[in-house]
Amino acid sequence: MKLFGYWRSSAAYRVRIALNLKQLSCEHESVHLVKNGGEQHSAEYQSLNPNELVPTLVDDDFSLNQSMAILEYLEQKYPQLPLLPESLEAQMTCRAIALDIACDIHPLNNLRVLQYLTSELQHNDQEKNDWIIHWLQVGFTNLEKILNKTAGVFCFGDKVSWADICLVPQVYNAERFKLDMSPYPKIANIVKHCRSLPEFIKAAPENQHDAVI
Amino acid sequence: MKLFGYWRSSAAYRVRIALNLKQLSCEHESVHLVKNGGEQHSAEYQSLNPNELVPTLVDDDFSLNQSMAILEYLEQKYPQLPLLPESLEAQMTCRAIALDIACDIHPLNNLRVLQYLTSELQHNDQEKNDWIIHWLQVGFTNLEKILNKTAGVFCFGDKVSWADICLVPQVYNAERFKLDMSPYPKIANIVKHCRSLPEFIKAAPENQHDAVI
Repeated sequence: MKLFGYWRSSAAYRVRIALNLKQLSCEHESVHLVKNGGEQHSAEYQSLNPNELVPTLVDDDFSLNQSMAILEYLEQKYPQLPLLPESLEAQMTCRAIALDIACDIHPLNNLRVLQYLTSELQHNDQEKNDWIIHWLQVGFTNLEKILNKTAGVFCFGDKVSWADICLVPQVYNAERFKLDMSPYPKIANIVKHCRSLPEFIKAAPENQHDAVI
Repeated sequence: MKLFGYWRSSAAYRVRIALNLKQLSCEHESVHLVKNGGEQHSAEYQSLNPNELVPTLVDDDFSLNQSMAILEYLEQKYPQLPLLPESLEAQMTCRAIALDIACDIHPLNNLRVLQYLTSELQHNDQEKNDWIIHWLQVGFTNLEKILNKTAGVFCFGDKVSWADICLVPQVYNAERFKLDMSPYPKIANIVKHCRSLPEFIKAAPENQHDAVI
């Protein structure tokens, strides 16, 4: 398998964590989202992923985009070391937490949206930052309430799942934009625990071969 | 089962279509997203769904939010009349198309985002409309390319799937904001076909008991 990603992309980061937790080997190809106007817009990459976004997973001759679809693919094709609970209701609750992040937090603060706010809508850095912080606060406030009901050492009990796989990259993002994490002790504790694990460490942005720090 | 939704919510609309296609009966409870500052923010609804968004599905004593998690729940709990293809790769492609809409188009144009653009960022109606049209055009341009490879009478071949369930509400939204659909003939044709089917007609916003037309 080959994963087309980018060190700082939260969506690619999710897939890297899942690959590591499932002990799957994968080649990593960097698509630089900023250099030369963004390599994701090149004709070559577009032919692989018309959405011009990362990640894209290529497994033999099958190519798949959307990080949440890729997690699903890995789960079904490589069922060893499952990343979702077995019981139907627990599984669905985990999925919903992951989607709370993937559908309601992450899309509002990704690169193309921030670029539109500054270039098209002429917002300055302070206004852009307020936008980012606003959606993180809305999302994390809700998530903290949910996790207070579901969490153990991980988002759902004491077993790692998609919810953690989505949470850790989202918190990485929040820290980049200096969100005050003190109102979210449950989120902070889960992320702290995840970050002590080798599968999460290996997947971290700063440990990717294309990282620029 | 009881679905907490709203006639114009695209996410609730997805679930209504799925329930109809799977021939599942369900009670519909309206959560008015605008009246009284938005009934989704009431303490009662928050206790059901801390995200203060619709839809929420309640099945006996199990409550689940996130429309894509609800589609998954219906698929696994009621496997009759499947809404995803059987083969792994086809299934994943359908999921990715559905997520292209649910993660990359819909979240940018939902009510709370538009409210933030006008109230916090002080944009006028024209600027708000440009924002909406921009993200629809980006999303639909990509989607048209993808569907040119995958579609038959539906998004994926000639069988209805999650991709159609997400597409029809998104096009309903686009029409509300008067997007010129002529650059997207494939999308338009699929939606036209879906709209001829009773399961889609029954789920349409204008046919809900809380519709205000």
